[in-house]
Parts: sequence; structure tokens; C-alpha cells
Amino acid sequence: MISRQIQLASRPGPSGPGPENFRLAEVALGDPGPSEVLLETLYLSLDPYMRARMYEGANYAASTALGAPMPGKTVSRVRTSNAPEFQTGDIVESGHGWQSHHIAKATDLRALPDLGVPLSAHLGVLGLPGHTGYGGLLRHGRPQPGETVVVSAATGGVGSMVGQVARIKGCRAVGIAGGAEKCRYLTEELGFAAAVDRHSATFAEDLAAACPEGIDIYFDNTGGEIFAACLPLLNRGARVPICGTISVDRNQPPEQGLDRMQELHALILIKQLTLQGFLFTGLQDMTADFHRDVSQWIASGALRYREDIVEGLEQAPEAFLGLFRGENFGKLIVRVAPEAHG
Amino acid sequence: MISRQIQLASRPGPSGPGPENFRLAEVALGDPGPSEVLLETLYLSLDPYMRARMYEGANYAASTALGAPMPGKTVSRVRTSNAPEFQTGDIVESGHGWQSHHIAKATDLRALPDLGVPLSAHLGVLGLPGHTGYGGLLRHGRPQPGETVVVSAATGGVGSMVGQVARIKGCRAVGIAGGAEKCRYLTEELGFAAAVDRHSATFAEDLAAACPEGIDIYFDNTGGEIFAACLPLLNRGARVPICGTISVDRNQPPEQGLDRMQELHALILIKQLTLQGFLFTGLQDMTADFHRDVSQWIASGALRYREDIVEGLEQAPEAFLGLFRGENFGKLIVRVAPEAHG
Repeated sequence: MISRQIQLASRPGPSGPGPENFRLAEVALGDPGPSEVLLETLYLSLDPYMRARMYEGANYAASTALGAPMPGKTVSRVRTSNAPEFQTGDIVESGHGWQSHHIAKATDLRALPDLGVPLSAHLGVLGLPGHTGYGGLLRHGRPQPGETVVVSAATGGVGSMVGQVARIKGCRAVGIAGGAEKCRYLTEELGFAAAVDRHSATFAEDLAAACPEGIDIYFDNTGGEIFAACLPLLNRGARVPICGTISVDRNQPPEQGLDRMQELHALILIKQLTLQGFLFTGLQDMTADFHRDVSQWIASGALRYREDIVEGLEQAPEAFLGLFRGENFGKLIVRVAPEAHG
Repeated sequence: MISRQIQLASRPGPSGPGPENFRLAEVALGDPGPSEVLLETLYLSLDPYMRARMYEGANYAASTALGAPMPGKTVSRVRTSNAPEFQTGDIVESGHGWQSHHIAKATDLRALPDLGVPLSAHLGVLGLPGHTGYGGLLRHGRPQPGETVVVSAATGGVGSMVGQVARIKGCRAVGIAGGAEKCRYLTEELGFAAAVDRHSATFAEDLAAACPEGIDIYFDNTGGEIFAACLPLLNRGARVPICGTISVDRNQPPEQGLDRMQELHALILIKQLTLQGFLFTGLQDMTADFHRDVSQWIASGALRYREDIVEGLEQAPEAFLGLFRGENFGKLIVRVAPEAHG
């Protein structure tokens, strides 16, 4: 069996990741050993956190080695199994990254629960991004009815969950997204109370106008200037769950200018803010609640989701790079092989 | 009755507060009305937060008006009372600021509990600073046995409480203070595991050496470069209760240079930090626990405290300005009138 892989060919240069950092390779797989299974990838999730893995150096997860496949969650089908707990044809969640086939230990796989949704949803609304948005908002945001919740990257997998859970919990959800089409989608399809276009020349004023009672929770997926624009609007006692830095490549040197660290520090004290960095891994105890609530909300129509499905593993690098240009619209997923194919 | 007052004569200029911003005045008081009492100030607390009140503009508490007495907590004696709940000679806590006498509403006073300590202790170890350190560490720091707790301004009223409660709770307490004498006091008198001199040319290295297992809780009384020096040492999941900014006059413009806001934001995410600004007012539900624990610890010798008592209201401005030059050693209190004087 041959596995096609997108490997990390080189580390990003001063201008950040580009197509030259990826290469397509074919790797011959052996046969699965005891308690191993051969997997065929159906869907691959593309997520912003993968950028940090492309660099060397300490971070909250290990760097990807040069020549290794890019990391990532997949929904895969078992082709052959030497493990008693999996049968040919079973659908599993795996973390084997950007490759068409893989031999996995059975203990590294998770059988997908039947939640009455398409398979790809396990990578988005009912997968890591949805779980991160649901758990991060409820645990670290602690939303109360009537509060204003602002979320950045609001049409993404995490952001669209945050805004909708906020609405379901009785809050006023305000989304920040790039462009009129995405903003319209937030208010017209997802029930956000308001949406603000981050490309607007009057972005800061638009945001203030959309939050006439200030911000009680700013769920931050972006960092950078969007984070900075939210700070002056935060109410006393506001919570700021920090989930991502999609707008900032932190391997780039900091900018010269005013040192705003002091200002941020003073604001934390003056407004008694809570800034809370968190990862998905700290929310895994909420899995049962997450599955129950979100599948019910999808079934009742209270919660919607949108996927941006790219066809074919070869398209993964370009689609991934587009994430940082704000090009995708909805949870970005690669269809690596058709579900019907055996 | 004449009350001597230290009034706010003018707002601080570009170089921060100076003696020219204060003036001594004498104000004639009338007689106490119904439910009012005439108070004589015995002790006045001087605290860093008062600096922010000298400026105009929004903050977490109102500005002091020009011509008004500087604000502050006092321990006072009732001279005459028109309120049934207070008798001549009663000792009360009041918030009437830098003045020798005051007519107060009975509802603005708090009878001091008998905790078996000298009266001045109600302004320090058993008053607002002690309560802030005790409650801030336990509620926002959540100390666990074996953790490393670093506190800045460690010989002050808040800091010396934080380090000793940390030690009592089984943590390794590391204090940051200015000068060898204060550092020696922390380790030899208060039982800190280590102390680091912030004036040292190798401060950052000294701090790292004092925290071989990193920092789990950094209780921040200072902000500024001490805050910045602690950041790289924070462990994953570290808590940073932010209580004060004594080292930073936030009415001064930010410095030019690298913009470290982004770096701080990235660190919050990478290390899953909690930064929590808080005020004393949010900890008042802990009063009974605080009084019980701290008076027991004082009685058993587990907890010590040091007061820096200045004689006479006229000395208050100079002593207050010395706070920001790190000149005081222990909780700074002004003795406005002798206890024995009737």
C-alpha cells in the first residue's frame, strides 16, 4: 500500500509559511502489526494551530519534524484490522495528519459516536473546533443572560460555535469577520445580533457601535489588532478566553512602536479582567455534555454550521495557506477520499 | 473643633506626584448632626492606590477633588456621638482620609472587632492590605502544596501576607524586594524560601536561580519590568493575580520600543495562563475566614508583620511619596494622635 503524504519540506522563512514549505511524497506502508489497523483517510481537518508546528522551538505542542507529514485530525475508514476492537469498514477519528493512508495502533484511534450527522462534522461542529468553542465559552467565558459576547474569526469552526452558544444562552452575540458576505451570514444565518467587518476602515468605531453596552466576554481567536480594538470596550469584570492567534505569526519579530504591554497590564487591574489562555485538551471532561447539547441543537435547528470542503489531498497546502488570508468560509476540511469508495 | 487636613492642592505634572501637590489646611467642623459622630484620627493608612486618585479621569475609583483631603482608611476614636450605636471612646474604622478630625455618619463606620492585636494592625496585617493579600492569593492564586509562589513588593502590607500565607499553605515563597536588608528580612524573619533584590544588576538571572522549578503563581504588586521579568519563568497553567502597579505611574505615556503586548498575548495562550485583575472589594465575603485565620497565625507565631509608623499628619506627604521610591519598610502608617490621648 502506498500512502500519499504532504510533508513539511522546509521551515517557513521570514515572510511566514508558503507553498515551498510543503511537498507531496509517496511512502510505501508495510502491513499492520498486532493490534494495528490500516486506515484510509476520508476527511482531513485544516486548522490554524498547524502553523506553529511548522517552526522549530518550544511551544505548547512539539514541532513537526522536517520530512514528516503535516499533523492533523482525520476521519478515516478501517481497511484492514489486526485489532479485535476494529473491523474493516469502521469509521474512526485519527490524528495521523496529511496523508492518504496510515497504519495506526488501535489505542490511538477513537470510534466515532453516532450523533446523526455527516462524517465530516466530526472534524468541525462536533469535533475539536466545535468542542473548543463550546467548552471555552462556557467554562472560561461564563456567559450570563443579557451579556454581550464578542468573538473574532466568527465564521470559523470555533467562532461560529461560540456565537451560537452565546445566543442560545441568552447573550447578545457580536461576530468579527472579514467581508460583507461573512458578516451577512453571521446575522442572517447564525442569529448573531451584529457583525463587524474587520476590513472596514472604521473597524474600531463599527465595533463600538455594535456593542453599545460594552463587552462582557471577548472570545479571542485572532490576537493582534482585533484583540487591541476590543480592549477599550471591555466592561468591568469582563472575561477574555484566549484561544488563538490566527492574525499573528508569532515567529515574526514584534513591532516597534508604543509598548502596549503596560497599558494592557493596567487595564487588567482597572477593569478587573480575567485573561485566560486555554487549549482544547483542558476541556475534554466536557465531551459528553458537548455531544449531547450540540447534536440536540443541530437537530432542533438552533445551531447551524458551514463547511468549506476542498477536494483532494494535493489541495491541502494552498487551502491551508488561505486560512491566514481569511479566504475560507466555514470549517476548512479536505475530502481525501470519497465516503462511498471501498 | 478644627480639623487639620492634607488636601490635594494640584494634580501631578508630567514627572508624577510631588510635595507641591499637597497642602496642609485647617478646617472648622460644626457639631455632629443626628446619627453622626465626631471622630479623632489615631492612625492613617498610606497605600499606593492613592496615587491614581490624584489624577483626573476614569479609573476604578473616583478621583479626589482638588481641595479635598486625600483619601484613606483610618482607625479613629469617637469623641462625641449622636448615634446610639457608638459611645465616646469607641474605636472605629473610618475612610475619611488625611485629616485629624471628622464628622461621620454612623453608617459609614465599622466597629473594630477585638482580634487581640494593636490598633494599628487593623490598617495593615488585619486590614485592607492583609485582606487583599490573603484573599487574592487564596481565591485567585489557588495555591497548591509544593508550588512556587513569587510576590513583588514582598515586604509591603500585601506582599508580606501573600508570601507567608503561601508558606503556611505548603508553597515555596519567593519574594522580590528592594535592597539586601529587606531581602534578609523576608528569608530570616518571614520564612520566605528565597528573596531577590530588584536593584541587582543580575535581577532576572537571580530570579531564575531562585525559581529552579519555574513559577506557578506570580502575585503582582508592581507591574512594569518586574512583571516582565517573571513572564518567561511562568509554568504552564500559572496564575497571575494582578493587584497593583506600584512601579508604574500609568498616567505617564507608554514607552517607545518593542511592542510586548503581542508577546504577552502569545504567552498567555502557549502557557495557558490566567491573568486576573482584582480589587479588595471583590474579596469582602472572605472577611470572617480572614480574621479567624490571620489572628490565629499571629497568635501562634506562624505569621509576622512589620509596620513603618510615621509620626504626625504633617509627615504624610513625604512618607507617601517615599512609597514609590521604595523607601518604606513594612506597612506604612501615620500616627495622627496618640492612643492614650483623650
